[in-house]
Formats: sequence, C-alpha cells, structure tokens
Amino acid sequence: MVKVSIIGATGYAGVELVRLLALHSEVELMFLTSQTYSGQKIQDVYPHLRGFVDKELREQNIEEIAEGSDLVFLALPHGHAVAVAEKVLKMGKKVIDLGADLRFRDTKTYEAWYKVSHENPVLSRDAVYGLPEINRNRIKEAQAVGNPGCYPTSAVLALYPLIRQNIVDVKTIIIDSKSGVSGAGRGLVLGSLYPECAESVKAYNVGKHRHTPEIEQILSELAGTDVTVSFTPHLIPMTRGILSTVYAGLTCAAKDIDIEGLYRTCYRDEYFVRVQPKGVWPQTKWVTGTNFCDIGVDIDARTNRVVVTAVIDNLVKGAAGQAVQNMNLMFGIPEKTGLDLVPLYP
Amino acid sequence: MVKVSIIGATGYAGVELVRLLALHSEVELMFLTSQTYSGQKIQDVYPHLRGFVDKELREQNIEEIAEGSDLVFLALPHGHAVAVAEKVLKMGKKVIDLGADLRFRDTKTYEAWYKVSHENPVLSRDAVYGLPEINRNRIKEAQAVGNPGCYPTSAVLALYPLIRQNIVDVKTIIIDSKSGVSGAGRGLVLGSLYPECAESVKAYNVGKHRHTPEIEQILSELAGTDVTVSFTPHLIPMTRGILSTVYAGLTCAAKDIDIEGLYRTCYRDEYFVRVQPKGVWPQTKWVTGTNFCDIGVDIDARTNRVVVTAVIDNLVKGAAGQAVQNMNLMFGIPEKTGLDLVPLYP
Amino acid sequence: MVKVSIIGATGYAGVELVRLLALHSEVELMFLTSQTYSGQKIQDVYPHLRGFVDKELREQNIEEIAEGSDLVFLALPHGHAVAVAEKVLKMGKKVIDLGADLRFRDTKTYEAWYKVSHENPVLSRDAVYGLPEINRNRIKEAQAVGNPGCYPTSAVLALYPLIRQNIVDVKTIIIDSKSGVSGAGRGLVLGSLYPECAESVKAYNVGKHRHTPEIEQILSELAGTDVTVSFTPHLIPMTRGILSTVYAGLTCAAKDIDIEGLYRTCYRDEYFVRVQPKGVWPQTKWVTGTNFCDIGVDIDARTNRVVVTAVIDNLVKGAAGQAVQNMNLMFGIPEKTGLDLVPLYP
Amino acid sequence: MVKVSIIGATGYAGVELVRLLALHSEVELMFLTSQTYSGQKIQDVYPHLRGFVDKELREQNIEEIAEGSDLVFLALPHGHAVAVAEKVLKMGKKVIDLGADLRFRDTKTYEAWYKVSHENPVLSRDAVYGLPEINRNRIKEAQAVGNPGCYPTSAVLALYPLIRQNIVDVKTIIIDSKSGVSGAGRGLVLGSLYPECAESVKAYNVGKHRHTPEIEQILSELAGTDVTVSFTPHLIPMTRGILSTVYAGLTCAAKDIDIEGLYRTCYRDEYFVRVQPKGVWPQTKWVTGTNFCDIGVDIDARTNRVVVTAVIDNLVKGAAGQAVQNMNLMFGIPEKTGLDLVPLYP
Repeated sequence: MVKVSIIGATGYAGVELVRLLALHSEVELMFLTSQTYSGQKIQDVYPHLRGFVDKELREQNIEEIAEGSDLVFLALPHGHAVAVAEKVLKMGKKVIDLGADLRFRDTKTYEAWYKVSHENPVLSRDAVYGLPEINRNRIKEAQAVGNPGCYPTSAVLALYPLIRQNIVDVKTIIIDSKSGVSGAGRGLVLGSLYPECAESVKAYNVGKHRHTPEIEQILSELAGTDVTVSFTPHLIPMTRGILSTVYAGLTCAAKDIDIEGLYRTCYRDEYFVRVQPKGVWPQTKWVTGTNFCDIGVDIDARTNRVVVTAVIDNLVKGAAGQAVQNMNLMFGIPEKTGLDLVPLYP
Repeated sequence: MVKVSIIGATGYAGVELVRLLALHSEVELMFLTSQTYSGQKIQDVYPHLRGFVDKELREQNIEEIAEGSDLVFLALPHGHAVAVAEKVLKMGKKVIDLGADLRFRDTKTYEAWYKVSHENPVLSRDAVYGLPEINRNRIKEAQAVGNPGCYPTSAVLALYPLIRQNIVDVKTIIIDSKSGVSGAGRGLVLGSLYPECAESVKAYNVGKHRHTPEIEQILSELAGTDVTVSFTPHLIPMTRGILSTVYAGLTCAAKDIDIEGLYRTCYRDEYFVRVQPKGVWPQTKWVTGTNFCDIGVDIDARTNRVVVTAVIDNLVKGAAGQAVQNMNLMFGIPEKTGLDLVPLYP
Repeated sequence: MVKVSIIGATGYAGVELVRLLALHSEVELMFLTSQTYSGQKIQDVYPHLRGFVDKELREQNIEEIAEGSDLVFLALPHGHAVAVAEKVLKMGKKVIDLGADLRFRDTKTYEAWYKVSHENPVLSRDAVYGLPEINRNRIKEAQAVGNPGCYPTSAVLALYPLIRQNIVDVKTIIIDSKSGVSGAGRGLVLGSLYPECAESVKAYNVGKHRHTPEIEQILSELAGTDVTVSFTPHLIPMTRGILSTVYAGLTCAAKDIDIEGLYRTCYRDEYFVRVQPKGVWPQTKWVTGTNFCDIGVDIDARTNRVVVTAVIDNLVKGAAGQAVQNMNLMFGIPEKTGLDLVPLYP
Repeated sequence: MVKVSIIGATGYAGVELVRLLALHSEVELMFLTSQTYSGQKIQDVYPHLRGFVDKELREQNIEEIAEGSDLVFLALPHGHAVAVAEKVLKMGKKVIDLGADLRFRDTKTYEAWYKVSHENPVLSRDAVYGLPEINRNRIKEAQAVGNPGCYPTSAVLALYPLIRQNIVDVKTIIIDSKSGVSGAGRGLVLGSLYPECAESVKAYNVGKHRHTPEIEQILSELAGTDVTVSFTPHLIPMTRGILSTVYAGLTCAAKDIDIEGLYRTCYRDEYFVRVQPKGVWPQTKWVTGTNFCDIGVDIDARTNRVVVTAVIDNLVKGAAGQAVQNMNLMFGIPEKTGLDLVPLYP
C-alpha cells in the first residue's frame, strides 16, 4: 500500500482526490490538511464522504506528514507549493502538485503570467509535466510532477495527433474552451454565485488566461518550434466539465488525410482517450466523474481547417484523476487502478 | 458469476443498471433488450458506456434470454412486466421488476390507480416488495421482487422509524416530494424539455400520483392499520435526486423523545441509510450516483410535529441501485457489492 | 412625478427596484445608495442597466436623500432600517422597508426570532403590512410600510381565501416552500455557489426560519385566533421564483365546497392574483419577471385536506414589485403602473 | 394601430412575438394560428399569457387572415413560408418571415444547405434581409422581410465594424457560438430533454450548420468579396441566449488600431447595440428578455488577432424582437416601440 497525504484537501480538487483515493485498492490515506477547516472531521465539511473517510483535518505540519507518507499531493493556490514540495522531496518522498508551480520548464514564463516570483526555478525545471499520454515514461521515473491544468489537458490532447503528424500550421491554432463553474474553485467570489452564472455564458480573461503559456510550452516542445495560440476560456452554467473546441489550418490537402484514423492510431494504446467515430461530437456529460477524454474530430473541406472537440471532467482528468493516474505510474501500479469508473449519465 | 439480463436497457433506469452492473464483480451481463434501438450497439446509443459494455441491443426473445440468465431485470412501462415475468419464472429463473406490476399485494388497488387490469394477481401478491431495509429476509428467499418506486423509497425510509415506534398519528402524515427530471424517464414529453423545466418548479398529479397507494400499502403493513397520506410530487430543475419532506403529528410529548437516537437505532445496521446529526439537513447532491439514503430529522416543539427529510438518487436507491441491492440479497452476494461508490460532489 | 430613492440599491431586491422604476411612467429616480460600490456608476456594477440608469451610487446621507425625495425605499439587512426610516419620516417623507424591521405589530416576536433588539416598537406597530390584496385601504393612507417577505407573500395569498371563509382547521396548516437562490441575496456565502446548489435540493432552517412568525402574525389577524404553522423552506436550483405548497384540513365535507369558485370570488378584483382552473398547477416560470401570484387549488377528498400551490417571482411580488405596488397605492397612482409586464416564458 | 397576425404562434419564436406585441402601443393583435393547438385558447397553451391575450388559436386560413391584417409574421418551419408569403403579398399586405425562406438572395445556396427546393427564387431575391443595423433604409421600404437567424445576428453584428473598416483578413474568420436550448425550438427531440442537456455542453452540426451560408452571404456583401467562415455552434445548458466568439486576423499592426473606438463609432446611433468598455466581456444574462446585442472586443497583440464576443437573447434580437424592430421600421413607428425593456438580471 502506498501511503499518501493531501495538502489542501477541502478545495474541489482536494476533495475529488479524497473521493478517488477512498476506494483505491493500493493506497492508504494518511493525512488531510485544511487551513479553513483544520480540527474538523472531513465528513462534517463534506457530508457526502460520511462512511468512507473518517479523518480529522490537520494543519500543514509538512515534516510530520512527509515522514508518514510515500507521496504527498499538493492542492494549494499557486505560489504556495514550492516550499512544501522542497520539504517533501528533501525527505525522499514524492510529490504531485496540482497547481501551476511545477509546470513550467522556464520559470520566467511563469513569473510573467502569474505575477509572482518563483522561488526554485531548478525544481520547476526538473519536475515532469504530468500528462501521461505524452510523458508516460518520464513520469514513471519522476520524484516531482507538475499536474497539468484543466484547460491545457483538454487542448493538448485535442492537438497532439495533429502536431505529432505535422499536418497543421501552428500559427493558426485557436482554442475556444467552455468550462463549468467548479473550475473556479470553492472560493467565495461573486462570479461563482448561482444567480450570477446560471442561465448565462461569458468569456473571461480573454488573451490573458494563465493556462495559455502552459499550452504553448507543451505544444512548442512537441512541434519543435515556438507555438503561440489564441486561447479563450468561457464560463458556462454547469458544475463539472470542460469542452475545448480547437481550430487549425491544414498544411496539406484535406482529401489526403484520414483524420479519424490518425487520431485512432495516435491514441490506440490510451485507455483514457476515447476517439469518437467521425461525425460524433462528444458532450461533457459522457465523461462525468471519470478520467476519460472523449474526442471528436473532422476536417472542414470548405476552409481546409481541422476542427476538434475534446471533453473532460475538469475535476478528474483535469485535476484529481490525472494526479491519481500519475501516482499510479510513479509507483508501478496499473494505470487505471482507482480510475475504473463508468461515467454518470444522465 | 451470476448471469443477468435487462429487458428495457435503454431507458434511464435500464442504462443505470448497465452502469452499476458493468463493474459488478459477481455478475456477468448477458442480454440487453431495447424496442427502440434493437440492432444497435448500446455504446452507440449511450456513448458514455464506450469501453465498458460492447453489446448489441436485442429484441425481447424472453425464452432465449431467460434460458441464458439466472436473473432478469425488467425495466418496462407498467402493464408490460407480468407476461415477461411469468415466462422467466416458469423457466426457474429469478426476476426483479423495476416497474409497478409486482409491487401490490392487492392488485385491485393497482388497477384503480393505474387504470389497467392486472393479468396475474397471484403473482403480484406473492412477489416480495424489494425494500431491503424492511424486507431483507423475505427478499433473500424471493423468486420475484417488485422493486419499489423512487418516491416510496424515500418516503418510507423517512417514516419507518416513526411508524415502527408508534409515536406519530398516522392520520396526519403529509409527504411533500421534490424530484429531478430523470424521474419522468427518457420519453419525449413536452414537460421534460429543458426550456420548459429549467428555472422552474411545479407540483403535478396532486392527490393522484400512482406512488400514493404504494406508500400507503407499506405504511399500512408496518402500522398494522390503514394509513392514508397526502402525497404531493414536485418537479424541480435537476436531473437526478429526490428529496421527500415528511410531516407527522406526534402522539406523545416532544420532550420525551430522542428523535435522532431513535433513527440511529433503527438504521444502525443499514449501510445505505446515513442518519445525519441533529440540525443537519441533507441535500440530494450528497448521494449523487450512489445507493445511499441520507436522512435529517427533528421535532418542531411549537407544533408537536416531527419533520423528516430523506434524499436519494432516484436512479440508484430509487431504481437501479436498489435493484442491484435486491439481486445481491437474492444470490447471497455481500449486499454492497457493486454499490460501494462515493457520491459525486460537487 | 413621484421622486423616489433607494437605500441599498445593489442587492438583488434593490437592483430589481431599479429595473422596475427605470421605466415607471410616474416616477423619477433620485438617489441610489450602496455601501460596497459607492462612487461607482450603477451601470458599471450592473451592466444590464446600461442605457437605462446613469447614476452614481452614493453613500447613505439620509437627510439629503430624504430632502430630495417623496418616498424612500429601504433594502437593507434587518436591524438597519429603523434608524433610517425614522429620519425619513421625520422629514415628512414616506418610506417602504423591504426588510423585516417594520413588519411586526409586536416587536417582541421580532426580537425573539431575529435575535436583535428592536429600536422603535411604536414605529413598527404603526407601520402597515404591505400586502395590498389584504391591506389595500390601510396602505393607501400609510406613511411607513413594511413590505412582506417573499415566503409570507406566497403562503398568505395561498391561505387567505380559506381563512377568510373559515373552512380549515388552523391547527393543521403546513407550508412547504421551494425557493430559488436569489432569495439568499448577493452575499458571498458558500451555500449560494453554483457548484454547491446546482443539481441539488435541501431543506434549511427547518422550524426556525424567520418568516414563520410573519406568516403566523398575518394569519392570526385574519383568523381572529392564534395560528401556529409548520413552515419548511427549501433551496432549489433556480435563480428566481418561489412555490409554496400549503396543506390544511377542512372543517367541513369536501363535497360541500366549490374550492375553485371560492378562490375566484376572493380574488376576482385582484389583477395580480391569477387563480388557475381546477386541476391546473402553476409553475414558477409562468410569473417570471412579473408581479403575479398564480394559484392552483384542489381538495383531496381521500384525506379531506385542501392543497394549494402559489407561485411568485420572489424578487418581484416577493420584494421589489410588491414595493412598487405599495408605492402606487400610497401615491394614488393606478396600481399596476410600472408592473404591466408579460412574464418571460420560456 | 397596425393590425398584425402570427402564423405559427405557439412555437417559441411565435409566443415570444405574442409577449412583445401584447403590450406594443401601436399594434393590434388580430389572428394567431397553430397547427397543433388550433381551437384552444392561447392562454391555455401558455398560461403565462393569462390576462394579456385572450384569443383562440386558429387554422391557417391565410386569405382571411391577410384580409384582416396589415402585416403577417410567419414563424414556420423552413420550406413552409413561401406559399404563405405569396398569398399575403398578393393581397397587398406586408410579411416578415422568421424562418430561412426569404433570407437568401441566391436560392441555390438555400437549396444546397436546406436540402429542399425553393419555390420562388424571385421572391427570396427581392425580400430584404432584416438586420436593421445594416439594412435599415431598405427595410423601411420593404414589403417582405427575411428576419435573420439567431446565430447570424450575433456573428454579423460582431464582425460588421471589422469588415466595414477592412482591417481583417476575411480568410481567417472563425465563429464559435454557444446557444441556449430554446434555439432548438419546442419540438420533442431527445437532445432537448432536460436530463440530456443539463450539466453538459457539446458542439453540433460542425461545419454543416445552415446558418453558415447566411453569415457568409451578408459578410460577402459587406466585404465585396466572397467570404468563407468556420462556424461551430454549441449547445449549452440554459434556455435563452447566444454568445458568439469571433476570431479574425488583423491586416494591419495592432498598435495602429483603437478597436473600442472603432466599434463605438460604428454603432454610435444604434440603440440596440451596446459596446462595452475595453476589457469588459458581456454575458448573455445582461440582455435576457430584450432586443440588445452587447459586444466586447479586444486585440490580442501576441497573435495579432481581434477577438469579439457578442451576446443576444436568441428569442428576442435573435428572432421575435428583431422582427418587431423590422415591423416598426416598415410602418414608420419609432424603432424601439414595444422593445423598451430592461433586461432581467439576475
């Protein structure tokens, strides 16, 4: 049994980790921390967990926690993970950070977009970007993993087969994403109130969202050239789910491409990516509660563009589920352990 | 492995059965039927199942299906289950009907409320009403089980401890229930369209809902006297979930009753009933996707009434999950097998 | 033109007043105040108002505001209206309080339920309870009006014809109400976040909601005897709307009562109450954005109870619209001026 | 008073026309037709209208209807409007078609996308495309108006200032639209059921939506060259509203453009278009129930693209409201008569 702890267990990503780990056959949950609720039992904060986890939430005594754990998950606001990760690693334990602090190879980019200075560029550089479909082998060897953001996960999985085959002009990439409200976290902000976001949709942080450079970093690595994208996130009235619609101009003739076959080939060994038959466009509800990424793709011959839509549950494949997938890889556990869940539909 | 089949697998209750059985460790799924979609693969009708169940939907060739099954679930419109159940039972196989056709001891009541004649009153009389928290031992021995309705499950579990202890005046019982739209099924009816029910709530079938006599039957059995209730269902804008608010006048002084203790005692051995601490009122989301019934209860000393709220996922404890629970009992499988799921929150 | 101002214009009730008054033909909007946003323009806080109201939000300089107004609306948290109302009245201007501070004839009840001391019991006693369908003539003469709560408006309009005709046992009244989330206001509370309340329903403040004594006060006055009710509010996933389901035991035989006729007679001159044909149960969406209260009623002969459902838009007939209706009465303006709106459906 | 009738009054666009016309000061409602509900009163089909319109729904006796009307609105499925429009026009009365049958100058395009033959290409060619912000003068003189589709209205208003100033490369235009479910009409289709679309989002008709050629027709006219666009509609869980996000590559340097000023100048005389301050991105709820189109715009200097979002209420500016605006123009009524409504927020 792998002993794991969660720093920041009462945010939405943290409590989703608890849900997934509670029934994970190879894991023992050790410590759960919470700044807001320390001293309370987690089932009193989240009564849906009653009967599954009977643990008191604790303060962040990192040394004690790392001492008793093989792996520590960090689900903290950005800027708070580096110091914690350093302590965990120093004690020879592994760490997966669900925030942004370990995602960037070059922390100057991080600093420019997140408007804070990064305390340990070397740590960030050496951490592995935890997208298993692309970095599986490196994740297996990693001590520290930067778990991808929700938008980048959907956007990169949508684009990976195209970039890999070098059939699109990377200067033409547009990513239009739609997210449920849980992506904003459990913080008390006006825009997350039910009456403010029900029956409404809006774009936000247009041209400025912090997931932009994360998407560009990984696409640039894959393409072997600098990639700049237009990325527009939208808030839509649902709790879970992200759908990213991706547009890219083809560099070859549409008739020469078997686009569905290209995606099937690329993802043929990926359990968590389900490529849909041509003409089938996935909806977020097809993956609710699970680690799947469902992808629909087609070519618009009129414009010679490829259009891809990728859907994930932002709290699972976009956060906690992917973190569990990474953990499984890091500890030699079969990759879908604890993630073998049927989506909840309707 | 128990071999099971589902007659009517593409309605919401049917497909929820598929979800639960797909990962059930003691079950092998044999046949799935569908009138509307026979000949298609279920994962083409319900793409969320892709990767889990790869079966062609078939027509209702009952003999062949019963031949190859140990148990047949029926998820059919009322009036259609009796003939099918007869055939299954004649071949020595077990049956669980998720509809109303096997729920009534006295089919005259059924006929009066459902406006159809019942073809086999003896079969209905001898079937066991599948509410495990009340009828567990009889279910274990049953060949035919009438799986309870969604509203009755929530209402009866809310009232059971009160009736059992004989502390309320059964003439004063009022049940005010709120249901999500999936309770109306997948049929194409105007009232289930998103624009008709989003951002709205209404009562319906006031004084006339067919679950009324079902509730009264079981309460009357428990009370040992005829019980008549006021039952008002409401449609609210959500997909899954029922909350029943129950009111009953006490027959003794409020101060003499430890109401929380009474509920805890009654349900102390029931895994699927979670009695909340006093003053905590459950919300439906605490049980989403699971077989739990969460109950809040208190006494209003000003009016000397007890108020109870019980929440379930109407498709799980209110339908498919309870059917699986019944199956487990009928085949000597540990009761929570396949139902050990953490609720999806938020 | 009546000159009116709003103290607390940026809460949901306040801004709904702005919406209704912006196009009111007999009103001139003078001052809008806001503690949170003073100094900003209201159309920057609420961009939907752009083009209609171009006013800077101000601090509460009550003397100046009252000086320039004929009527001041107060949309403040309870406990804050009395001191403001006193100043306005002292300057000879009229006041309508949308909070609870002027609703109670006996402020001891207020103090017991609201847990604060009332600063001016005489003012509260002499204020008129602003439910026009019951107190129209007194409202016309009033200097100070306590605008009813949202739940009481729906519950009392549902019960009024029954109490007036003295055909129900007032000891048996149960009020089960379902409200949208805007009823909780625009405050940043966890329970109002979209992910916490979407796809879910819960009861809250069971037996303890502060609208209980308000309902009891008015029903007791109408009945001429002390009335105690069970009142249970529920939060459901929608923004606007309240549906109250009311149960009461008849004191006479069901067959002797023309229940629809009784309601029609009672409300025959009331523009804003729309009694539905027997068997038609209103949904909240039928009144969205308007001052209507739609009522469905029937007798359940099996239990000899009458069941009534009343729906309102909680921000209109349950708050701002009713306040405008009261204003119209106080200034001799035709009652439906500014409220002649067609509901928004779907 | 202008005498108007509606053919197809019980679809969502038709009944929204009724809502807007019921209180229109210059209009008298004459005939309402419905195939499904003829013989019933409209307030029994749509009870929210009770008290406003007391008319029996009739069959389509076009001659009689045209005889008694100055203008006839057609809200019919495509392919059904031409024959009706011909009869109305022959009797010297005016017609506004809310469907697609009069929108295309070249009906070959219509036939290719709608898969039906057009019965009267001359009628379609001579009809005026009813987007007042672009075609106001021609609408004033028109006998027949083809009212724009909901998606084209939002997309074209978003792009008009860019095309007019010739600052974008028309080969790079991508339109990513998000629509509420009422856009699918009131027909009984599986995808419109609440449980199928709540808490979910999907793209549909990718590369194939019939509004594509309509958008291209008007943009091509404005640009003076053939314009081909990528247009992807998405269904999101809300009833009303469309948000279109539009991307286009600049043909000049970003620093040389005052993008907000350009939009303000273009729409300075347009009451129904509200250009937001730079950095403010509108949400659909800011226009609910009204004829406004709110627009946010900015340049992404990193990619040298302009990003625009335009929001409308699909049933108002996207259908019935725009039809009323066109009617006002055709009859010399002040343009905002009957449309002077404050959005319903929250």
